[in-house]
Amino acid sequence: MVINYPNGEKFQKATSAQPSLTKKVNYGNRGMSLEQEINKTNQYYRERGIAVIHKKPIPIQIVNVDYPKRSAAVIKEAYFRQASTTDYNGVYKSHYLDFEAKETKNKTSFPLNNFHEHQIDHMKACQQQGGICFTIIKFSLTQEIYLVPAEIIFEYWDRRFKERKSIPKSIIQEAGYFINYKIQPLIPYLNIVDHLISQRQK
Amino acid sequence: MVINYPNGEKFQKATSAQPSLTKKVNYGNRGMSLEQEINKTNQYYRERGIAVIHKKPIPIQIVNVDYPKRSAAVIKEAYFRQASTTDYNGVYKSHYLDFEAKETKNKTSFPLNNFHEHQIDHMKACQQQGGICFTIIKFSLTQEIYLVPAEIIFEYWDRRFKERKSIPKSIIQEAGYFINYKIQPLIPYLNIVDHLISQRQK
Repeated sequence: MVINYPNGEKFQKATSAQPSLTKKVNYGNRGMSLEQEINKTNQYYRERGIAVIHKKPIPIQIVNVDYPKRSAAVIKEAYFRQASTTDYNGVYKSHYLDFEAKETKNKTSFPLNNFHEHQIDHMKACQQQGGICFTIIKFSLTQEIYLVPAEIIFEYWDRRFKERKSIPKSIIQEAGYFINYKIQPLIPYLNIVDHLISQRQK
Repeated sequence: MVINYPNGEKFQKATSAQPSLTKKVNYGNRGMSLEQEINKTNQYYRERGIAVIHKKPIPIQIVNVDYPKRSAAVIKEAYFRQASTTDYNGVYKSHYLDFEAKETKNKTSFPLNNFHEHQIDHMKACQQQGGICFTIIKFSLTQEIYLVPAEIIFEYWDRRFKERKSIPKSIIQEAGYFINYKIQPLIPYLNIVDHLISQRQK
């Protein structure tokens, strides 16, 4: 039986098991989706004037709207549309940032079918304009988070019909950047963006 | 009686009136909203790899979704939310662009109540991060379009309770940039952004 909180989030049963001492895992964010974690992180960055990054709203095709008197308009019929861009973008230290956030339950690789073609095309176009593009990948079973520069994604994406349809985790560990959960902000990905910026300037 | 084309656009009755020779007005875009014109312009820029600018989807609060078998999910109840950002953003020549598009039927000024406080706050935050922020204002009665740098908007916005609640058109003409309608693209606003960029580099 699944019990949900009133807000719809899954209820996580508290256990009395001792946390393992060998693995450093932040339990504070348990039950949060990667999207929620990144939204919280972006809010932190915005409130402190560090960066202005927002998640884009879900694109919706509205078919029918009701305008009742004395109350808000109600959308009565609408459909989800496929996004033509990535989920997040914004500005940081004069740089344009553009990224996706993806979670996988896989243990040894990241399946490329997590992307739509137009998301990849969008990242390629942004990169060409001088934007900084990447994907934040979370291996949810181990709560490991990596920032993977878009070039790595493109490399595997472009060969996906010839070779494998996923990026090995070992490559992500090697060519990507591990992000340690922190408290403030939860996912300090801009530290890694700083590194990417300094590499560009070389 | 209003007749609409099958695509929902208003039917514009053709008239045999001679176009005035003294005013150079492009009649090709009549009946298009400023939003449609800018979307077309951005599509032109994207398709040619000139810039990657998108309009953000309308933010919606989804309350109830139906998942019928063998067909797409239908949103049955949803509400419009207020956007926390501007409508357009993207990347051009490594620069982050962020802007609003506003139409007015006023003849002599642009009323500041066309903006929400959070749109202004968002533009201020983006500008502080080194983004290029502006508003494209259309005086719809005369089909005149201006790019107005965000600083002009801020100046009048911050004094709106002490002084006037609108920006005089004369100021927009002086401190803003008139954009001539073209065919390709319809509203070549990036020419003016080029000018803003060159001014920054001085």
